[in-house]
Amino acid sequence: MKYPNNIMKSNKKAINYSNRGMDLEELINETNEYYLEKDKALIFKKPTPIGISEAVYTPRGRIIKNGYFKSPSTLDYNGIYRGKYIEFEAKETQSKTSFPIANFHEHQLKYMKRVLNHGGICFVLLKMNHQVFLIKGEDIISFLEEETRKSIPYSYIVEHGKTIEEKWNPSLDYLKIVDEIYLKGENI
Amino acid sequence: MKYPNNIMKSNKKAINYSNRGMDLEELINETNEYYLEKDKALIFKKPTPIGISEAVYTPRGRIIKNGYFKSPSTLDYNGIYRGKYIEFEAKETQSKTSFPIANFHEHQLKYMKRVLNHGGICFVLLKMNHQVFLIKGEDIISFLEEETRKSIPYSYIVEHGKTIEEKWNPSLDYLKIVDEIYLKGENI
Repeated sequence: MKYPNNIMKSNKKAINYSNRGMDLEELINETNEYYLEKDKALIFKKPTPIGISEAVYTPRGRIIKNGYFKSPSTLDYNGIYRGKYIEFEAKETQSKTSFPIANFHEHQLKYMKRVLNHGGICFVLLKMNHQVFLIKGEDIISFLEEETRKSIPYSYIVEHGKTIEEKWNPSLDYLKIVDEIYLKGENI
Repeated sequence: MKYPNNIMKSNKKAINYSNRGMDLEELINETNEYYLEKDKALIFKKPTPIGISEAVYTPRGRIIKNGYFKSPSTLDYNGIYRGKYIEFEAKETQSKTSFPIANFHEHQLKYMKRVLNHGGICFVLLKMNHQVFLIKGEDIISFLEEETRKSIPYSYIVEHGKTIEEKWNPSLDYLKIVDEIYLKGENI
């Protein structure tokens, strides 16, 4: 499973909403629904591509009897916000010290660079050490180009990433950070 | 089947490439691959959303044993071109006189309007009478708002649409038309 129900469940009394036990994908989906309702942005998780080896026709439509998951070559989410193309990936790691690059498929990293070259906004939302960070695609790429290490140290993430507070409705207001780091100075 | 191998197969000697018997979806996919290779645009068909009722784990990964197709609420294709968000739908009709609106899901039409409101480029590629037309989302929306008819007459399509020539590599150069009608005057 890509996003296990994670380590954040706790019996401590919570004053923020980060202890609801939602994994990152759930938080993002909930947030995207909120954005959609408020007409703030149109951002969706792309359906996982499926290969079909066997399908049958039934009165209720075509049914898959044998299907498999293909590995994605692009990123998890895309859409439009304030006229801009946005594409991003969500990742969680239970490591406290570094984020292994192997969490990405090779072609996803290449694709990230292409989105940036085409003028898109591209980033990673990373859940690590009980926090969610937005890390710009540019910072992931430049780490990979300058370093030979196979994982990004937590210190690099803290230095280059922006933390996104988990709160109530929307759960994870990442577009606030997008405004701050990409769109500041533009009229809304 | 949404895109049957269509009526264009013919024994006539062809001087253009429109008789290769490819359906519209194949033409568009081939064209998008061409754009991707040439790094002209990043545009993909969205995978059909699948609901899974039964899945099993095997040594080779998770396999779907019972799945069904969900109806899409957005459009078929999206991506980025020259920094712009693009989303479009592909449709074919065998009617020679009009294009039935029922070819769209209700929420797809609403969604089209939302993409336009967010500043995206949004259109329909329609194959009809052996031609492929690009019809701007704005023209579809204004037809629906001004007319009570349940289908768009061919004359409206000819008047408001732009024909896209089928040719060799790329098969269906719709971005040429996007340049003409949306991006003229902008520096490439």
